[in-house]
Amino acid sequence: MRKKKVCVVITTRGNYAKMKSVMKNIRQNPELELQVIVGGGAILPKYGNIVGLIEDDHMAINRVIHFLVEGENPVTMAKSAGLAITEFSTAFENLRPDAVIVMADRFECLAIAMAATYMNIPIAHVEGGEVSGSIDESVRHSITKLSHLHFPATEDAAERIKRLGEDPATVFTVGCTSLDVISEIDLANIESLMGMQKKIGLGPLLDLHKPYLAVIQHPVTTEYEKNLFHVNETIKAISALKMNTVWIWPNMDAGSDGTSKGIRVFREKSRPSYVHFFRSLPIEYYAPLLKNTACIVGNSSSGIREAGFLGTPCVNIGTRQKGRQRAKNIIDTDYNAKGIEEAIRTQIKHGNYEPDYTYGDGKAGERIAKIIKDFEFAIQKKIMY
Amino acid sequence: MRKKKVCVVITTRGNYAKMKSVMKNIRQNPELELQVIVGGGAILPKYGNIVGLIEDDHMAINRVIHFLVEGENPVTMAKSAGLAITEFSTAFENLRPDAVIVMADRFECLAIAMAATYMNIPIAHVEGGEVSGSIDESVRHSITKLSHLHFPATEDAAERIKRLGEDPATVFTVGCTSLDVISEIDLANIESLMGMQKKIGLGPLLDLHKPYLAVIQHPVTTEYEKNLFHVNETIKAISALKMNTVWIWPNMDAGSDGTSKGIRVFREKSRPSYVHFFRSLPIEYYAPLLKNTACIVGNSSSGIREAGFLGTPCVNIGTRQKGRQRAKNIIDTDYNAKGIEEAIRTQIKHGNYEPDYTYGDGKAGERIAKIIKDFEFAIQKKIMY
Amino acid sequence: MRKKKVCVVITTRGNYAKMKSVMKNIRQNPELELQVIVGGGAILPKYGNIVGLIEDDHMAINRVIHFLVEGENPVTMAKSAGLAITEFSTAFENLRPDAVIVMADRFECLAIAMAATYMNIPIAHVEGGEVSGSIDESVRHSITKLSHLHFPATEDAAERIKRLGEDPATVFTVGCTSLDVISEIDLANIESLMGMQKKIGLGPLLDLHKPYLAVIQHPVTTEYEKNLFHVNETIKAISALKMNTVWIWPNMDAGSDGTSKGIRVFREKSRPSYVHFFRSLPIEYYAPLLKNTACIVGNSSSGIREAGFLGTPCVNIGTRQKGRQRAKNIIDTDYNAKGIEEAIRTQIKHGNYEPDYTYGDGKAGERIAKIIKDFEFAIQKKIMY
Amino acid sequence: MRKKKVCVVITTRGNYAKMKSVMKNIRQNPELELQVIVGGGAILPKYGNIVGLIEDDHMAINRVIHFLVEGENPVTMAKSAGLAITEFSTAFENLRPDAVIVMADRFECLAIAMAATYMNIPIAHVEGGEVSGSIDESVRHSITKLSHLHFPATEDAAERIKRLGEDPATVFTVGCTSLDVISEIDLANIESLMGMQKKIGLGPLLDLHKPYLAVIQHPVTTEYEKNLFHVNETIKAISALKMNTVWIWPNMDAGSDGTSKGIRVFREKSRPSYVHFFRSLPIEYYAPLLKNTACIVGNSSSGIREAGFLGTPCVNIGTRQKGRQRAKNIIDTDYNAKGIEEAIRTQIKHGNYEPDYTYGDGKAGERIAKIIKDFEFAIQKKIMY
Repeated sequence: MRKKKVCVVITTRGNYAKMKSVMKNIRQNPELELQVIVGGGAILPKYGNIVGLIEDDHMAINRVIHFLVEGENPVTMAKSAGLAITEFSTAFENLRPDAVIVMADRFECLAIAMAATYMNIPIAHVEGGEVSGSIDESVRHSITKLSHLHFPATEDAAERIKRLGEDPATVFTVGCTSLDVISEIDLANIESLMGMQKKIGLGPLLDLHKPYLAVIQHPVTTEYEKNLFHVNETIKAISALKMNTVWIWPNMDAGSDGTSKGIRVFREKSRPSYVHFFRSLPIEYYAPLLKNTACIVGNSSSGIREAGFLGTPCVNIGTRQKGRQRAKNIIDTDYNAKGIEEAIRTQIKHGNYEPDYTYGDGKAGERIAKIIKDFEFAIQKKIMY
Repeated sequence: MRKKKVCVVITTRGNYAKMKSVMKNIRQNPELELQVIVGGGAILPKYGNIVGLIEDDHMAINRVIHFLVEGENPVTMAKSAGLAITEFSTAFENLRPDAVIVMADRFECLAIAMAATYMNIPIAHVEGGEVSGSIDESVRHSITKLSHLHFPATEDAAERIKRLGEDPATVFTVGCTSLDVISEIDLANIESLMGMQKKIGLGPLLDLHKPYLAVIQHPVTTEYEKNLFHVNETIKAISALKMNTVWIWPNMDAGSDGTSKGIRVFREKSRPSYVHFFRSLPIEYYAPLLKNTACIVGNSSSGIREAGFLGTPCVNIGTRQKGRQRAKNIIDTDYNAKGIEEAIRTQIKHGNYEPDYTYGDGKAGERIAKIIKDFEFAIQKKIMY
Repeated sequence: MRKKKVCVVITTRGNYAKMKSVMKNIRQNPELELQVIVGGGAILPKYGNIVGLIEDDHMAINRVIHFLVEGENPVTMAKSAGLAITEFSTAFENLRPDAVIVMADRFECLAIAMAATYMNIPIAHVEGGEVSGSIDESVRHSITKLSHLHFPATEDAAERIKRLGEDPATVFTVGCTSLDVISEIDLANIESLMGMQKKIGLGPLLDLHKPYLAVIQHPVTTEYEKNLFHVNETIKAISALKMNTVWIWPNMDAGSDGTSKGIRVFREKSRPSYVHFFRSLPIEYYAPLLKNTACIVGNSSSGIREAGFLGTPCVNIGTRQKGRQRAKNIIDTDYNAKGIEEAIRTQIKHGNYEPDYTYGDGKAGERIAKIIKDFEFAIQKKIMY
Repeated sequence: MRKKKVCVVITTRGNYAKMKSVMKNIRQNPELELQVIVGGGAILPKYGNIVGLIEDDHMAINRVIHFLVEGENPVTMAKSAGLAITEFSTAFENLRPDAVIVMADRFECLAIAMAATYMNIPIAHVEGGEVSGSIDESVRHSITKLSHLHFPATEDAAERIKRLGEDPATVFTVGCTSLDVISEIDLANIESLMGMQKKIGLGPLLDLHKPYLAVIQHPVTTEYEKNLFHVNETIKAISALKMNTVWIWPNMDAGSDGTSKGIRVFREKSRPSYVHFFRSLPIEYYAPLLKNTACIVGNSSSGIREAGFLGTPCVNIGTRQKGRQRAKNIIDTDYNAKGIEEAIRTQIKHGNYEPDYTYGDGKAGERIAKIIKDFEFAIQKKIMY
């Protein structure tokens, strides 16, 4: 029997964390053939090149593709998308997948979905249907309208995909894949995490057996010039608390310069003795970090999904996660140093929450591989109204 | 006062016909500044280069952009989209429009919408919300999800856009712009149309004062290899009727080769004495052709919109116009020579229908310019559920 | 032992004819690994897609790459080069060749050489050093300045490469590869050639056992608008002679429209009963055609190289082959119908010439493979003065 | 009379310094029209965006073009070239220059020259004909073979261009344009330079009235992995001398990571109290820096050209400037800390040299504008042998 060829696209380190269990389940399935394309931020040293990481997991990479145009501004984001289409169409033509899996809502995902659409290759979309209050949301729903098979994380998102006119027979709530990975990690391993401070981190070495905060703050694309202001409010709150803090640098994104600059100045000028910085952190270190932190602070979706699943308190700042379904572990705040500080104090006082399975139970990858195996793709879509 | 800069993108001759009244109304409005980008098929001689045509209408062109990759197949369609993003992002960066108007559902329109999205330029989408039963439909709804202002032609389409989660305050039913142009043309001018047979047509010169048929059949993108079969059924029907017939070549599109080949073989091998061929026909000749034909045959949307407005009988073949709202002038048929032939005979017997305004009243361009002038664009969109 | 990976790039049908013996010799060499990239005109049906042809020769293709931008004009020629670099750099990154072989002087060859240069991949250039009196000449010498190993066809060309400052130790006169292929073909096989008229030709079937002419006329890039005039002079000469004539369509090239249009009008309007047209002709049919024609007419380099080797009379028109070394079989003429006609008459009267080995003896491919195997590439070049 | 449109391309801050006098002279000439395209590193904040700088000089910018693909490695360098061709061809099509001026030997210059070549736009090449012992040299000579008018800086370079087969009537020795700018700067203005330390520099504020060193060390493209080692030798020498030192960061270039990393580690780990760092320095500050330094150290061409003209001692390290004609102010050394240190001590002891005009007298821009005005470009080139 001819195997169904399923192409997984990885464009950031975070993508790989989220797709790893899907990839493993595809590879293990005798009726499926896994194809892997790695590109964009995932192959740039500055965002943490993961080619080696994937190869360490015994996953063969079919193509490595550079497509990011320098500038980290709106025009180069558009150009990167253009280059991505150009490149991925050649890869698809030569690899001839039976389906392509794209993830969530990054700008290049829409580009890749477009390439697949025009080439009549069915698209399976993971983590569609969510609302988030940023330009990503338009991109996410736009990808939904091009996709043939939908793997939302939550019932909420699944419902929204159906309201967007997608055939309910193509919508499967599978949970969030990032929880699959977490389920397999030794969450008590604080020692290794501390070891990473020496290897790849910047700043003082912190004793993470003592209570500590974790911060991740990403730029918000359409508020380009405000990003510096935003991050500075967070910095003020952290400076007031003076608690041990692990700060993880933002992903690439148009506008990252504003946010990054704020962090860089904080690090270089203030040289805080209680903050350790990571450019990025592999999930096997990030998960224990998140499990054991007194509070995760910023606007990362991991504060909502993974932290909810782990019961870790979270202070979520600003609009980036607007509209996402959330468990009890979240306190939402504005871009306001005082408010952020108080929310963190409240969370520390509260301590851990009960685990919540709104975003999945750690079996998403298994479900996705099985559904793709059985699904009969029809390239022609029809709106349901 | 600073004028609002509105950029209109023209990528096919048909685009220009449809956008001309919008462009004229923008140009005449003292609060608006018109920017025009012409590219793709619109500047290729083989599809009828319209740069001269636009200049004859005293419209300045700001940029001429080539982006079509040769091959007329799925992979080059994707590549063309990639190149379009690359090119349009530079144009947008240098022209800095306050809004971009994109038209309908061609593959490059999604690319252009993507470029605008990433660059935080609001998008006004003309003719969204329609259903058509082809890959264009996915593209059209995907553009809707990126757009900030919607100009559907019909109430039906407007309703669908709202159900897709767009804010009703951004959806304006304006009618179809192609009817604006028709309203200004001398529809009785059969003489000029006959003159065009000598100038740009191929085949015998027909006397169009006598009853004649008009045929336009486009390839259907996702049924690449069936296009030859489809067009041959139409050819058989026309061959059986042996009535004077004006046949207009299909647009570029992945898959056009199948359809074009069928027509080319028919023309070169059968050399029918009763069929005149045009590569394309300017709207000022096409409108009288459509007004005075005994029946318009094929799968062009003009059989539904313009013919309905003019009361011209239409035989619509196959799936391309599936789901479009239609007036009484339409008989739908399958790809079946016998069925097509009979439907044409029925329509000839019936003769003209009453005009129908489902698709507009000829004032769409005026409305669009006015609404754009007054509209306060918010780049951040929100799904309505 | 690790094999040396040698990547051959094929972008036109003619390329393949010329590279086939090189490819065969590389594939047969146990110390070399052949990589094949096919793209551009070579994979477009309208120029004669050769993917199947290569596969029939049991040569595996590593990548298929579309890069031609539609328009056949100067700007799209530049854009095609840009796309070629983008695409070939990804292919090179994934295939990691130890050397790339590029051919002659087409615009995409410089693009491909540039991609290799920037990626520190050594370049072997076949057929450099020639003069031709067109923009190709600048391109050819520019490629020479990027190349690390040179395989000129003639001593003349080798001398010129050295004068361009290339290290004499890197310059090897090997003869023209196109003669390799001809050496292996049954040149008496007129029957098969006649059979091709039915299969892939257009126009009346000619009896090629009787004396016949062969015509190939390419556009001359920098004289874009004159191409139509040029081809019409040739058409007049052919029309005056009214001898059986096999006419082969020009390659893609900016400006091909002028030339092609002239030929198309001649074919469709005059419908000459004595001319048979081919879009293109595989070398196994072209070689017998050339061997047995009374005279080869036009501006193809095959009139100089292959015809010289075969002793076939040639009337070479215009500037395209200016400066190329030539045997006694050539009469050069201007773009002038009368002059062309007379030159053809003179050649017919003269009949065949003695074979000439200025352009090679049919062993070029063998030599090239062997030299590449032994050559130690140094990426850093040095001008010799 | 129709003005001759001359398009100047600026892709780095250094380009602008070198082209400013040419641009001023073109703008002032009533028979010429200046077109300016700025792109690549010149518009990236991290290399010092110069759009504002050009506008401050009352020079209108016709196009801003992003074309650098992220990664700073060989494959993205190639891709950047591809994107440059794509972008510049559209710009050229819309601006329609009568000639394009390209500078020296950066990888994008060959791309831009290629775009012009294919579009039949004559190219004037500034600073061709030099030898330098790196991949830039192949690129430089390759550009020469595409160019129609040559403006070498020295007699030496002019001679080499002629030997490359260029028509002597197209070769004009004009001197180096960078000396034009220096001639207009107040070279005694140490105060402003010191002020820049606060504004845009990093590290301790140095008193530059006291003797100081200046360092600029660029990566050497084809020795990618050795760049870290190379820069560390220089760092050791500087650390041994412990003299006040102004260190200027390298340009973007494939391989810059190795060099930049060495510098970054030096700065962050050693925190030398005697070294001030600049990302880049406008020429009006750089010229006084160079005039007044005790010795310029590294591999910048400014150590040879500008320093020679100013009589400033220079220690030139490694192969990057290999083969360039040089005045008496240079001591060449290997990548060897001890050797570098000693050479610097020798230069400090020697003090200033006599000015040398090998590289020009400060009137290059004036000459270039005048010659371009009078030159009759012929697009068709011919090799001179």
